[in-house]
Amino acid sequence: MNTICKLFNIKYPIIQGGMVWCSGWKLASAVSNCGGLGLIGAGSMHPETLEEHIVKCKAATDKPFGVNVPLLYSETERVMDIIAKHEVPIVFTSAGSPKKWTGWLKNKGITVVHVVSSSFFAGKCEAAGVDAIVAEGFEAGGHNGREETTTLSLIPSVRKATTLPLLAAGGIGSGEAMLATMVLGADGVQIGSAFAVAEESSAHPDFKKVITELGEGGTKLALKKLAPTRLVKNAFFEQVDEAEKGGKSPEEIRGLLGRGRAKKGMFEGDLDAGELEIGQVAAQLNEILPVDKIMETLIADYENATQNIQGNKFTF
Amino acid sequence: MNTICKLFNIKYPIIQGGMVWCSGWKLASAVSNCGGLGLIGAGSMHPETLEEHIVKCKAATDKPFGVNVPLLYSETERVMDIIAKHEVPIVFTSAGSPKKWTGWLKNKGITVVHVVSSSFFAGKCEAAGVDAIVAEGFEAGGHNGREETTTLSLIPSVRKATTLPLLAAGGIGSGEAMLATMVLGADGVQIGSAFAVAEESSAHPDFKKVITELGEGGTKLALKKLAPTRLVKNAFFEQVDEAEKGGKSPEEIRGLLGRGRAKKGMFEGDLDAGELEIGQVAAQLNEILPVDKIMETLIADYENATQNIQGNKFTF
Repeated sequence: MNTICKLFNIKYPIIQGGMVWCSGWKLASAVSNCGGLGLIGAGSMHPETLEEHIVKCKAATDKPFGVNVPLLYSETERVMDIIAKHEVPIVFTSAGSPKKWTGWLKNKGITVVHVVSSSFFAGKCEAAGVDAIVAEGFEAGGHNGREETTTLSLIPSVRKATTLPLLAAGGIGSGEAMLATMVLGADGVQIGSAFAVAEESSAHPDFKKVITELGEGGTKLALKKLAPTRLVKNAFFEQVDEAEKGGKSPEEIRGLLGRGRAKKGMFEGDLDAGELEIGQVAAQLNEILPVDKIMETLIADYENATQNIQGNKFTF
Repeated sequence: MNTICKLFNIKYPIIQGGMVWCSGWKLASAVSNCGGLGLIGAGSMHPETLEEHIVKCKAATDKPFGVNVPLLYSETERVMDIIAKHEVPIVFTSAGSPKKWTGWLKNKGITVVHVVSSSFFAGKCEAAGVDAIVAEGFEAGGHNGREETTTLSLIPSVRKATTLPLLAAGGIGSGEAMLATMVLGADGVQIGSAFAVAEESSAHPDFKKVITELGEGGTKLALKKLAPTRLVKNAFFEQVDEAEKGGKSPEEIRGLLGRGRAKKGMFEGDLDAGELEIGQVAAQLNEILPVDKIMETLIADYENATQNIQGNKFTF
């Protein structure tokens, strides 16, 4: 049996990334109901909003689901208390040290996964006692590693560094890409962008439309002097890009960024002034579809790609 | 039969990239003798040097080999005349428009392949009448595309854009990575870094040693205001990086770069002042091995990875 399916008690080793402004209870429960693992993205929620989403998610699915908690926010303690109170079975942590919360969560019987962008941090995760790792490459949307290691380069290195169950993330929006990363050593995948554009995603419809229209080169890693973030190349990006090329200081760029830009763009649909986070794989996403259709296609294409190899298409 | 093997009349769809300061006749003939396709890298050779390498390569192998010609250099006409004179059967062009030389080469009966970093340029290649395409991702060493599309993101898009035989490049240093890119739609691979570090590579031994010691994050895409190039993070890189972060102009950065930096670093072994071009996959390369051993491992690991899928390891 697949190690990820076993760990989470799910049918397919497909995790829906807990994305800010996209991953509410509707998206998470839909993915879990289809046999994947849905994650609520706590990064864009006040604790009381998160609590509401957890309660609604529980009502909408009897399957396992989880919460993604970026550790850089100030209200992490309240968030963790809510997660424990409602007995959420799985927590993905990111953007911080795995040492900080893994023990506390494990003591409560919660399965813990941490997101990394290097095998160095994969080692730290193993030492901290996490149950699995997400290794996310440069092509991923939103927050990103400083070393800019791509998924193709990253997965073999992380696979070599740890025996923990390993999820590949970044650039995966098809069954073929899923199989490709599993050939590289991943046990399953975490998919963001392809679910950000799902009907059940809470992203603003205008943002979803932008995603379906993006071509190659439509995103770029920006804000490198603050926390590297992959953004759609909209008007706001151009401002940031010009400031960076002009050698502006971190403080000046922070001033330009201000507060609430991601909400403005991704949730409120301000396509010019907002910060729009999405992965390179957006170039392959051309439709807004319901989760069940997305899951069905992923699995069919994965199985088809596997069959092609079994049919010796790739021998010479 | 594999479309790449058929096109080039070779045994394995493995092309050795024509890299500056690494890919002389010794490397190219060794790869061709092992059943792949060796390429002489004309980018770092005066026309008369190239002629010498072609003659020696012909003497060292009776298998097909080719020449890689970056079209940005001034002596391209003389280079092409030498290629035609010696009836080199295959030419890979890069860093320029495929329209410029494809017709001329095809008229002489030469098989033409062009290197691209986007599906937009893949379309241009098809229009120009090339026989095959190399699609190279962000993780590749040396010169690189402006859109920063990674191999995992690039191959599916290019595969969709053209029916031409397709070689994946960037981040491929193992049989597993080879299979992964073929699952994504490539018909074969072009491998650079793993051959740059081969015994038969003409790179300076000290540069090869650096490559085997690099970890993740040991390279970075730099020189973005000139022509984006992936470099080892040595002292010269740090100078460039600081200048770029400080907002220096293209002219100032060109001044910093000067001339002959790549030769100084890669061929003469000046590890501090030289420009050292290598891909992210260097993190996976730990030994200086002869080409026959590299090819043997690539093919064994590819076949093993294929077997693992055939053994249903990946079904759930």
